[in-house]
Amino acid sequence: MKKLINDPLKVADELLEGLVEAYDGQCKKVGTRSIVKNDIPDNKVSLLVGGGSGHEPIYHGLVGENLADGAACGDIFAAPPPDIVLEATEAVNRGNGVLFLYGNYAGDVMNFDIGAELSSDSGIDVSTVLITDDVCSAPPENKQERRGIAGLVIIVKIAGAASQSVSELKELERIANLAVLHTRSVGVSMAPGSIPATGKPTFEIDEGLIGLGMGIHGEPGVSEIPMTTADELTPKMLDLIFEDFEKDNDIDDLVEGDEILFFVNSLGATTMMECLICLRKAKEYLNDKGVVVYDTIIGPYVTCQEMSGISFSITKLNDELKKYWDMPCESVCYTKL
Amino acid sequence: MKKLINDPLKVADELLEGLVEAYDGQCKKVGTRSIVKNDIPDNKVSLLVGGGSGHEPIYHGLVGENLADGAACGDIFAAPPPDIVLEATEAVNRGNGVLFLYGNYAGDVMNFDIGAELSSDSGIDVSTVLITDDVCSAPPENKQERRGIAGLVIIVKIAGAASQSVSELKELERIANLAVLHTRSVGVSMAPGSIPATGKPTFEIDEGLIGLGMGIHGEPGVSEIPMTTADELTPKMLDLIFEDFEKDNDIDDLVEGDEILFFVNSLGATTMMECLICLRKAKEYLNDKGVVVYDTIIGPYVTCQEMSGISFSITKLNDELKKYWDMPCESVCYTKL
Repeated sequence: MKKLINDPLKVADELLEGLVEAYDGQCKKVGTRSIVKNDIPDNKVSLLVGGGSGHEPIYHGLVGENLADGAACGDIFAAPPPDIVLEATEAVNRGNGVLFLYGNYAGDVMNFDIGAELSSDSGIDVSTVLITDDVCSAPPENKQERRGIAGLVIIVKIAGAASQSVSELKELERIANLAVLHTRSVGVSMAPGSIPATGKPTFEIDEGLIGLGMGIHGEPGVSEIPMTTADELTPKMLDLIFEDFEKDNDIDDLVEGDEILFFVNSLGATTMMECLICLRKAKEYLNDKGVVVYDTIIGPYVTCQEMSGISFSITKLNDELKKYWDMPCESVCYTKL
Repeated sequence: MKKLINDPLKVADELLEGLVEAYDGQCKKVGTRSIVKNDIPDNKVSLLVGGGSGHEPIYHGLVGENLADGAACGDIFAAPPPDIVLEATEAVNRGNGVLFLYGNYAGDVMNFDIGAELSSDSGIDVSTVLITDDVCSAPPENKQERRGIAGLVIIVKIAGAASQSVSELKELERIANLAVLHTRSVGVSMAPGSIPATGKPTFEIDEGLIGLGMGIHGEPGVSEIPMTTADELTPKMLDLIFEDFEKDNDIDDLVEGDEILFFVNSLGATTMMECLICLRKAKEYLNDKGVVVYDTIIGPYVTCQEMSGISFSITKLNDELKKYWDMPCESVCYTKL
């Protein structure tokens, strides 16, 4: 695998330096490996995201206008250690609390939790909301154990917009939790990405198989199924999301007349061509269900190097979520008028 | 190569149907294979782009608010035939002329030119501006022979914004030509994409080599050079752009104090991580030159399936180009606040 890098052990640091440059003065690097907006108003309830590097443009690309105030960045596929979480927290804090919003991976939870304790010790009020949108990684009754995958883009977008207007940390926490409850994803993978430091693949999968429900690092999913067409696979994936809304007692079923956000994410090397062909079939399916797509999002936002794979995310909208979705936003990862 | 498609011979048609869905009602499919905005005002000077499919999100993803009014889409890596150019032209025409703006490839030129004749025959005033930003594909004295590569995103953005305010086709043609004159790109490739219909690679390149100046279909460039690091390659590529401004008598050199747009494009499988690492080095280089980056654009906008490669584009700004660049735009390919 030919990669345009320098020292393979320094890619996380160097990409962060590049990311700061991509922001054209809107963000700065803070401490060891955090990125923070330059213009966070006094007294704002702040939003901090973060996670391992190597999945660009998330998470650190989601810092921006009406998005996150900062990101604590880990090394490649590794959680940010507690001292980085602390440096990022101190940098975004404006005295009115900081919400930690990130994907539910064991390493991230451990490190952000210690970072939260350290932040508390230095007098900063911190709450945590875990992103758990991958319906394949645990049944609805244990949905708090699920992984976070591509739905995070929508959830951070909504929480970022909400963070502009709330006056209390508890209120931002409530809205972020609402966005998580309303957002469900299913992903598949066809081929692994590679680990920058070694060139080795992140997982293995037979040529004739698709991993259904695989996580973005290659975590096991529901099953392996034979490689198939876009039109065969798309309804199978969407069935899993619709069934999940049905089985979950904490939220109403997804039914005719409901408005949703629909997000087709490429894991990296899967082309926009493939994403669009899947979207075509998905819209047929959603039209048949009578569900109304309020906005479509499509592209390689949550990646794992040159991994081949795709995910669908659905957010069931209500008036409150729609209000925050409608706000414009701008960042290296996602921009919306 | 596992691809999430259906019939390999129908990918261009199916991706276009998906693209229309991605626009959430802002665009419609017209005729055989064109995409057109729904709300083109009467009397507008219209902007039509187009080219082969398989390079998504361009060109057809550049139809949108303050961008192109429509796109004539070819089959995979193939120019749109004249009847498709005609159907698109008739659909975007509002009686005040249509500018054709597309990349300088022989097949595109032939087909768009016949389409222009057919359009003329049906009473539509048409002009053509060719995008020729690839400095490696011909010397400055023959720059009209150059290929169009990633700089097209900037050029279409500027022309799209300008098309909102001009009252005459000649004026839009002048501004599009100005954007072309001011925009220069250099690309490299590390590995081919694959042809959807056959699964075969689009070109071949040795494991230890980089193609310098290769076109997006694998057209030959300046030379093949040994695979190297981001920090070694980046200045080499930028040198070629700066030298080109020096050698070209039609435009001033790029010197200290000049403002530019700087665009790092991934050809597909090259990760955002790599793009950011190259951006970091590029900004060092540009800072040393005293050139001021007014806006940075980064991501996989002009692709060739899962091709691995990267390009840099520089647009030397003046007040007029900056005015049009500053206007917000929204499309599936590129959105800016």
